Amino acid sequence: MTDTRSTEDDRTGPDAPSGPKQARSRVTRRHLLEAAVACLAEQGWAGSTVAVVAERAGVSRGAAQYHFPTREDLFTAAVAYVSEERSAALRDLFQAGPAARPAVVEAIVDLYTGALFRAALQLWVAASNEEQLRPQVTELEARVGRETHRIAVELLGADESVPGVRETVQGLLDMARGLGLANVLTDDTARRARVVAQWSRILDAALG
Amino acid sequence: MTDTRSTEDDRTGPDAPSGPKQARSRVTRRHLLEAAVACLAEQGWAGSTVAVVAERAGVSRGAAQYHFPTREDLFTAAVAYVSEERSAALRDLFQAGPAARPAVVEAIVDLYTGALFRAALQLWVAASNEEQLRPQVTELEARVGRETHRIAVELLGADESVPGVRETVQGLLDMARGLGLANVLTDDTARRARVVAQWSRILDAALG
Repeated sequence: MTDTRSTEDDRTGPDAPSGPKQARSRVTRRHLLEAAVACLAEQGWAGSTVAVVAERAGVSRGAAQYHFPTREDLFTAAVAYVSEERSAALRDLFQAGPAARPAVVEAIVDLYTGALFRAALQLWVAASNEEQLRPQVTELEARVGRETHRIAVELLGADESVPGVRETVQGLLDMARGLGLANVLTDDTARRARVVAQWSRILDAALG
Repeated sequence: MTDTRSTEDDRTGPDAPSGPKQARSRVTRRHLLEAAVACLAEQGWAGSTVAVVAERAGVSRGAAQYHFPTREDLFTAAVAYVSEERSAALRDLFQAGPAARPAVVEAIVDLYTGALFRAALQLWVAASNEEQLRPQVTELEARVGRETHRIAVELLGADESVPGVRETVQGLLDMARGLGLANVLTDDTARRARVVAQWSRILDAALG
């Protein structure tokens, strides 16, 4: 059951007035989301609870539950938040102008090799066995997938009006996901670099 | 603790004499392995115990523990066994002679979209958080990966003495793994068929 005790942190939220309290609420929320992703990546779904995350973020359990009423809310919001952060960072990286495709491919693959991917993978696999988690994660995955696709098309300078180009970009993102999976149990950095270099050449020829 | 009661099934094992008892022992073992993969795929690592699998296979718990002393033994042996079965089936499928590359790519991707992949994924993700499971799964994954690579090279008629060809085949298998992941929460069949068709063309051009 949700703890509704009113603490300092509890008194800030979506409907709170603007000002220092709202700013503090946003900071609390961000700390919770970042702690949730780290927790999921390191301990998996079974070891990830609101209480564990609250402690890790240095926030009271009541405050955590004020922001995220359920465990499912907290962890799906966390993966969504960090995905948006990473997507924004990727866009910023290439804001200066058109970049060489190999650098773009490398940056896209990088999205799938850190704590965010590990966290998302834990959530994804847990959702395949837990009905309670499934709808939220399915929706999240579709949303993040669409956004990543959009960024990839843009950064690669791919023209999706040409037949096959859409599937070419999708296949690249599937490969990136597979490379991420190969990095979960062992450090796959060296092999991955060779595969990415080779497929960047192939992709470049395919996109023209 | 391991149950060491001696039942009919218990009296058969690696050192048992050949004959009907040994044959029955092999059948029991196979039933356990197949039930273990189905259980992992459907219920995940948390819901997969030796007792649940024994019941599913219609085998006494003592017999199950005779064949597989630990939970880790049972589930890694199960993924190894079904992987070998699938690899053998893939080889048989193309035994008649050289096949068209798109058909080979499709068959390779199919390896990653069924219950076996779901089971392996559950084990893989659990191993990332459980030290007890990690060494066995890491070794298993490397072994299955090498075998799948060998089959892919052979069936695709790829010449690995040509620079880049090894990485081209590896990238295809990474993509297949990513496509498998995309099929875990939703039925991705239609999108996957389009991606596979497009990348078969690209791969065919790349391999020459």
